[in-house]
Amino acid sequence: MINIALLGFGVVGSGTAEVLTENKALIEARLGCEYNIKYILDLRDFPNSPFCDRIVHDFNTILNDPEVSVVAEMMGGSHPAYDFTKACLEAGKSVVTSNKEVVSTFGVELCAIAKAHGVRYLFEASVGGGIPVIRPMINDLSSNKINKISGILNGTTNFILTSMRDADASFDAALKEAQRLGYAEANPSADVDGIDAARKIVILAALASGKLLDPKSISTTGITKITLEDSKLAQSFNCSIKLIGYAETMGDKLLAFVSPRLVPMSNPLSRIDGVFNGILVDANMVGEVMFYGPGAGKLPTASAVVADIIDVIANRDADVKPLVWESATDADLADMGEYSCRRMFVFNTMDGVPMLRGAQVKECGGVFGVMTDEMTEKEVEKITSACGNKLVSVYRVL
Amino acid sequence: MINIALLGFGVVGSGTAEVLTENKALIEARLGCEYNIKYILDLRDFPNSPFCDRIVHDFNTILNDPEVSVVAEMMGGSHPAYDFTKACLEAGKSVVTSNKEVVSTFGVELCAIAKAHGVRYLFEASVGGGIPVIRPMINDLSSNKINKISGILNGTTNFILTSMRDADASFDAALKEAQRLGYAEANPSADVDGIDAARKIVILAALASGKLLDPKSISTTGITKITLEDSKLAQSFNCSIKLIGYAETMGDKLLAFVSPRLVPMSNPLSRIDGVFNGILVDANMVGEVMFYGPGAGKLPTASAVVADIIDVIANRDADVKPLVWESATDADLADMGEYSCRRMFVFNTMDGVPMLRGAQVKECGGVFGVMTDEMTEKEVEKITSACGNKLVSVYRVL
Repeated sequence: MINIALLGFGVVGSGTAEVLTENKALIEARLGCEYNIKYILDLRDFPNSPFCDRIVHDFNTILNDPEVSVVAEMMGGSHPAYDFTKACLEAGKSVVTSNKEVVSTFGVELCAIAKAHGVRYLFEASVGGGIPVIRPMINDLSSNKINKISGILNGTTNFILTSMRDADASFDAALKEAQRLGYAEANPSADVDGIDAARKIVILAALASGKLLDPKSISTTGITKITLEDSKLAQSFNCSIKLIGYAETMGDKLLAFVSPRLVPMSNPLSRIDGVFNGILVDANMVGEVMFYGPGAGKLPTASAVVADIIDVIANRDADVKPLVWESATDADLADMGEYSCRRMFVFNTMDGVPMLRGAQVKECGGVFGVMTDEMTEKEVEKITSACGNKLVSVYRVL
Repeated sequence: MINIALLGFGVVGSGTAEVLTENKALIEARLGCEYNIKYILDLRDFPNSPFCDRIVHDFNTILNDPEVSVVAEMMGGSHPAYDFTKACLEAGKSVVTSNKEVVSTFGVELCAIAKAHGVRYLFEASVGGGIPVIRPMINDLSSNKINKISGILNGTTNFILTSMRDADASFDAALKEAQRLGYAEANPSADVDGIDAARKIVILAALASGKLLDPKSISTTGITKITLEDSKLAQSFNCSIKLIGYAETMGDKLLAFVSPRLVPMSNPLSRIDGVFNGILVDANMVGEVMFYGPGAGKLPTASAVVADIIDVIANRDADVKPLVWESATDADLADMGEYSCRRMFVFNTMDGVPMLRGAQVKECGGVFGVMTDEMTEKEVEKITSACGNKLVSVYRVL
């Protein structure tokens, strides 16, 4: 009998209890052993829940119970989630989590602690919700060097951008609709400012490179300034605007950033719509593969948490090679100024705008979209300085 | 030092040697041990290959060498591939393969032999080429009951259907172009008649159910009778025609078949074009997830073969739970007559055609496409009998 403890009984925590219960017979048959949810840590009581008898309020009850060997952390936020995770790992308990904030901030330390104590720290649910992506990147692309990762990593912003494209909704109207449907929080900053996507892309980049970037340090632009005209101009160039978490390995160096980008219709990410997520990985032998599915939600995210719990239980006696990450230093960072891609400049007039290489121009609602050939960030800066307030915005093209 | 033998030095075999060589430093670092390609079995000599010194012509050289612990079978065809695989497993060597014919025909027996001898039999490359799908279905969807699998599993037919849709090519013209580009063989039957897709869908269905169907026994319709008019009618209903391998678990029963289907634009499979493959899995907790990528090709397929080799080496001392399949019997099969979905009937006249529930009609080149509500296979048969030679064809809608 394996005893499991859940930390947090919110959306993902209650979903995890549901998956472990609903599919118990099937999962136990696959594992060849039985399990039990022994504790659920939450500040609240849940008198009407079928799990009310497992609710505990004191973390030490879990920490000090030697019968608990697997802990699923689904509290969100850095503290006390990080502290509880660390304590569990140090106590010889494996931890699985959906908490991207903790993984992206403390992943180096927590992986090292897990290794030192011979236990596992798994986080499939921290990126892409229910989409299998982290374990496949580790196990299935193991024969590859990963060159690039481009991901639609946040369902809230993708819902908003899809509404802007397909329903001609303004950003504000689309955000309100997302809030009404429960896809966006009352304070939507972590989503719409790209903070959530930044946490996820640094996790994926660390899988590719072994180096974990500080999510706060990477260039991050959200979607709050995207106008309906920008969206229509993108469409006139056969593109969709998507919030893209992007990472690239350049020799020994690593580049990662989050920004809205024009995604051409020929790229499969252009068709990942609504609250769905998609992660496109470019690797040196396989070429491009994409993982698609529900990037959030109670049961999908819980599905990934439970997959990690199953992994821990199934391999409890195996000598699994632990994940080791280093913190990325300045020496690991590629020069963002050298990053080159096509661009769409948006001008409010074409008078006195310099000729741009390969430029195609479209007009919409009094603004002009100018699609150019590839140019570096440095070249973009020069044009930005030269154009002053004629330039409204610039988009990278994927 | 782990010694590996490759069986077959054709497209996938030479690609596997290339991946193992090109990414050797990276893979050995991940594994924490060294490996060596000790033998390559082929009838031919390859005097100009850098691997010419590893070529052997006698399988027994490999079988009788106790230093060889991992064998990659990439010969294609049932014999002697099956016989060599069996002999290797019985000799205590793990086998990985890209050979869907062997896995779909002899998978039950070979998995059992692997289990009995404490070795592994892995076949990630047998479905979807380089796309991670088999290991993710086993490991990442482990917390789910799998309800349905819909796959574009054959790149050749998908290339042909994409050409018919986007370049207005006839089936014959599109097939010739596919042959010219090396995507289709001189004898294209295994692809265009759906035989290849049938082998792959029974493998996926076995992962979902534990029961392996005989690929020759499942209803299989290829793409040779699809006309340009059919393709245009599909588009007028906002669908693409795709060759779909489909499997569904219905309680304890299993249903699987291969046929061309109309895929609505809202389904992500509709946008999987050209030689790419996509596998959409509907599971009871996560909902829909899709795996996308190159379904064939030298290096992509080799990428999956090498991922399996890495899995075998990395877990050589672990007690991995072996895969156990049973042969599906008639008692395991759901009644295909009860399978229900929307349909597109194609008539050469609408005179005297009975009213069909929910029917919408479109015309193209003198034929009429009639899109109906959901109906069972039995109902379709009745309509087929009633309409005689007015009915040209019937398509299932996904």
